[in-house]
Amino acid sequence: MSKKVAVLLSGCGVYDGAEIYETVLTLLRLDEQGVKYQCIAPDIPQQEVVNHLSGEVEADAKRSVLQEAARLARGDILALDQAQEEDFDALILPGGFGVAKNFSDFATQGAKASVEPQVKAFTQAFVSAKKPIGLMCIAPALSAELIGPGVVCTIGRDAGVSGALTEMGALHKSADADEIVVDQQHLLVTTPAYMMATRLSEAKVGIFKLVDKVLELIK
Amino acid sequence: MSKKVAVLLSGCGVYDGAEIYETVLTLLRLDEQGVKYQCIAPDIPQQEVVNHLSGEVEADAKRSVLQEAARLARGDILALDQAQEEDFDALILPGGFGVAKNFSDFATQGAKASVEPQVKAFTQAFVSAKKPIGLMCIAPALSAELIGPGVVCTIGRDAGVSGALTEMGALHKSADADEIVVDQQHLLVTTPAYMMATRLSEAKVGIFKLVDKVLELIK
Repeated sequence: MSKKVAVLLSGCGVYDGAEIYETVLTLLRLDEQGVKYQCIAPDIPQQEVVNHLSGEVEADAKRSVLQEAARLARGDILALDQAQEEDFDALILPGGFGVAKNFSDFATQGAKASVEPQVKAFTQAFVSAKKPIGLMCIAPALSAELIGPGVVCTIGRDAGVSGALTEMGALHKSADADEIVVDQQHLLVTTPAYMMATRLSEAKVGIFKLVDKVLELIK
Repeated sequence: MSKKVAVLLSGCGVYDGAEIYETVLTLLRLDEQGVKYQCIAPDIPQQEVVNHLSGEVEADAKRSVLQEAARLARGDILALDQAQEEDFDALILPGGFGVAKNFSDFATQGAKASVEPQVKAFTQAFVSAKKPIGLMCIAPALSAELIGPGVVCTIGRDAGVSGALTEMGALHKSADADEIVVDQQHLLVTTPAYMMATRLSEAKVGIFKLVDKVLELIK
């Protein structure tokens, strides 16, 4: 039977949702490897809407994480409360500020951050089932909350973010955009992606390695 | 001197803007080929906003083509009225309904469609300068309006769309997702992309070929 991977999206757009390039590169590699995937998102409001032209928050704007993630999935999206860990062999979270704003309050709370309950429960089901998880960009900031203390991960070389995530209980290993960090014990694969990458072709190297390693770790 | 390509975006999302996967695959190939690119979009309102979860139009919603295209460009976007053809060696338009709704009224007017004036003027500047143009997905529907009558192109195998574009004065050649159609005389390269593709890895083949051929046609 062919493998199937859950890809959890936090919206659509680097400053308030899922990072678009990271998501597309993830889906491209899964498809090239002949692996099925399903994009999934929680049916919750975005914490804020950012005008990506000016970089400013649009004070009165409201958008839905699920509806915006549906853009990134060409409409083929599953609501998180309908998703079952049993249907998938692995889980991957692209980055983007949506992870730090919609999936958690890491953007404002740093080391005191808590994770959105549905996202936490879904991820922990994969941990319990000993299925591999891939986190990229800012998503590894939530490693200790999602996987457990002592987990080894990377967010690149940002001292503020790596300081916060180690305070939360994870272990940080510095890495560049073309590298992955593998915690064999916890079945976690991480890569800095756009925390370090300055070009699509750079982000691609680390993200393709992450996808390949996650697939390799599937039992 | 390194080549630089203008990529004209009609928003962010297949049903009301630029097709996300087509855009990212285009930018990825340009970057892999060591070619600089600039994403560009007109500062005009979207014709409509589509909820990509339900597929329905959101009656009162308003979005800006430029601001949404900025999402797809990670903020690195140039307003079309600030863009100069002289700064670029070639022009590429990804598809998505934004081309048929924001760049033109093809979605509602079919063969009677007219093209948004800034988009038309910018494209025709490339035609006059004998610089190559790449159109993908639904964008070749505007070939006769943008390039001129007698131009050869493909939108895949959709009889309704190909009928309308030939009525507008272009010549249509059927093609699959992994093929390109090249009009050497008019320096136009087209590929069906998501008019035919059912998977990212399929769309990639035609889009990479299109980018490579456009670059080859640069003098």
